[in-house]
Amino acid sequence: MLVLAMGAARAADALPSWNDGKARQAIVDFVKRVTTKGGKDFVPSAARIAVFDNDGTLWAEQPMYFQLAFALDRVKALAPQRPEWKDKEPFASLLKGDLKAALAGGEHAILEIVLATHANMTTEAFEKVVRDWLATAKHPKTGRPYNEMIYQPMVELLRYLRANGFKTYIVSGGGIEFMRPWVERAYGIPPEQVIGSTIKTKFEMRDGKPVIVRLPEVDLISDKEGKPVAINKFIGRRPILAFGNSDGDLQMLQWTAAGGGARFIGIVRHTDADREWAYDRNSSIGRLDKALDEAKAKGWTVVDMKNDWKTIFPSKSK
Amino acid sequence: MLVLAMGAARAADALPSWNDGKARQAIVDFVKRVTTKGGKDFVPSAARIAVFDNDGTLWAEQPMYFQLAFALDRVKALAPQRPEWKDKEPFASLLKGDLKAALAGGEHAILEIVLATHANMTTEAFEKVVRDWLATAKHPKTGRPYNEMIYQPMVELLRYLRANGFKTYIVSGGGIEFMRPWVERAYGIPPEQVIGSTIKTKFEMRDGKPVIVRLPEVDLISDKEGKPVAINKFIGRRPILAFGNSDGDLQMLQWTAAGGGARFIGIVRHTDADREWAYDRNSSIGRLDKALDEAKAKGWTVVDMKNDWKTIFPSKSK
Repeated sequence: MLVLAMGAARAADALPSWNDGKARQAIVDFVKRVTTKGGKDFVPSAARIAVFDNDGTLWAEQPMYFQLAFALDRVKALAPQRPEWKDKEPFASLLKGDLKAALAGGEHAILEIVLATHANMTTEAFEKVVRDWLATAKHPKTGRPYNEMIYQPMVELLRYLRANGFKTYIVSGGGIEFMRPWVERAYGIPPEQVIGSTIKTKFEMRDGKPVIVRLPEVDLISDKEGKPVAINKFIGRRPILAFGNSDGDLQMLQWTAAGGGARFIGIVRHTDADREWAYDRNSSIGRLDKALDEAKAKGWTVVDMKNDWKTIFPSKSK
Repeated sequence: MLVLAMGAARAADALPSWNDGKARQAIVDFVKRVTTKGGKDFVPSAARIAVFDNDGTLWAEQPMYFQLAFALDRVKALAPQRPEWKDKEPFASLLKGDLKAALAGGEHAILEIVLATHANMTTEAFEKVVRDWLATAKHPKTGRPYNEMIYQPMVELLRYLRANGFKTYIVSGGGIEFMRPWVERAYGIPPEQVIGSTIKTKFEMRDGKPVIVRLPEVDLISDKEGKPVAINKFIGRRPILAFGNSDGDLQMLQWTAAGGGARFIGIVRHTDADREWAYDRNSSIGRLDKALDEAKAKGWTVVDMKNDWKTIFPSKSK
C-alpha cells in the first residue's frame, strides 16, 4: 500500500499537468511494468524506444499545420524575388490573400508551396530561415510564438519517460529540417531523434567549402504507411511506446502494437474547444476516425484533453 | 608533468592495442581538448558525434566486401528456387563458380546480385538470413566468422570515445539492415546509430499483422557524396570526429572537417600485408588515393596499421 501510494505521489510529481485519471494511471503502470527488474514485462533501457507524432500530439495543429503557416509566410517573403508568382497558382491567389483559392488545388498545391519555400538553398540557410521565423511569427489565435504552442502535459511525459530510461523520438509527417532547429529546446529531443518527411539533398563544394543543398524533390513522406517505414529506416528497431492523434499515425501505432512484449499505445484526442480545439472524425486537419475505432477495439489509451489535462500550454515565457 | 604522465597511462589502459605513437597521441590529445571544461575547444557531450566508416575502417574488406560474400552465398542458397538464373547473367556465371565472369558487368552486376538477394522479403526475414549467415560463414583466408574480422584497436577507440561522452555512429556504404543485426555486439553501436545504404521498403498488412517488406529498388547509396547527405538526414548535426579508410569516405571527412571548432579526421591505412592486407592507391576495393593526398595536405591523422596497431583482430572466441 505504502509503495503504491509513493508511486502515485511520484507520478503526480513527474506529471503535474495531468489529472489523476485513467490515462495517467495507464502511463505510470506501463512504465512501472517495463522498468521493474525481474518482472515479466521488463525491457532493458536500450530497447525502451518511444515515438511521438508531432502535429496535434506534441504541439497544436490548428487552424492549419504550423509548417504550412511557415510556408505561406515564406511565399510572401520571397515574392519580390519571384515576380513570376504573380501569374502562377497557387502563389498568385496566396499573394492576393485568398488562402482558400490557393489551397483549392489540395495536396498538389500544398506540395508546390512547400517545395518552393523549403528548397534551393543550403541546409544551413534553411535552418536560419526556420529560426528567424519562429522568433517573429505569432499564432493567429493566441498571439504566442508557435514553439510555445506545445502541450505541457506531453513535455512532462517525455521528460518522465527519459527519466525512466526511455529514448524519446519524434516521428512526424512534418519536415525533418523544419523541426530540428527548435525541438531540443521545446521537448528535450535532440536532432538525431527527430524523424520526419524529407526532401532530397545533394553534397557539393562551393568555393572550396562543402555544403548540402536542399532540392525541390520529395524523398520520404513520413505519414501513414510512411511512419513505420521511417521508424524502421532511422531507428532499426521497434518502439515499445507510441503516441499519435490522427489517422496519419495509425500505421505507426499498429506497427508498435504488433511487437512482442509489453506495449503502450496512446492517442491524444482533441476535446477541448475552450482551451484548445475540439475535432476528430470530421476534421480535415488531424482527422481521428479509424484510429479511434481501433483504439476502442484494442484497448489503447485515449487521452481526453479536456478531462485528462490540467493545463494545455506552458505558462507564458517572459 | 605528473598529470601528463597519468593521462598517457590512462590512454594506454583505454587503447591497449595501439602502439605509443603519433596516431594514438593525436586521438588522446583531441579527446582531452574537447572534454576539458572551460577549455577553448570544449564541446558539450550531446554534440560529441563521431562517425566511422565500416568496411576497411572497423572490419576488413578483403578479398571482397563481406556483404558481397554474403550476397554470393545467398545466390547459391536461393538458386534451387530460381531456375531462371541458370541462363541469366550475372547469376549463371556465379553458379558455375566463375566469379570473375559474374562480376565482369561491374557495378551493375553487383547491384543485380544485391537486389536479388536482399529484397522481396520482410525486414524480419532478412534479419534472420543475416544472422544465420554470420553464424556459419567463414572468411576464406582466416577461417574465422566474418564478425570476428573486426579491428580490435578500433573497437577500443569506439569504447574510449563513448567513455568520454561521445555518441558513436557507423556511416557505411554497406546495407543498413545487413549491419544492424550484429554491430551492437561487435562494436557496442546500437541499431539506431547505424547509417548505411538503403533499399526502399513498404508497410503492409499480412493476415492482420503489419510487416515491412524490402523492395528491389535502391533508396540511398551512402557512399562518397552520399555519406554527408546521409549524416545530415539521419543525425541532423555535424560530427566532430570522422574516421574512414578510402576515397569513398572523402566527402564525409571533408564535411566533418569543415565544421567550426575542434575536429578530428582519421584515416586507417592498410599497410600490413602479413597480419592484414596492404593496399591503397591502386586497389579496386577500398582505394585510398585522393583522400590520402588530402590527409597529407590538411594534416589529418593517418593510422598506419603495421606500425600503429599492436594487434589487428580480437583474440579468437572460444
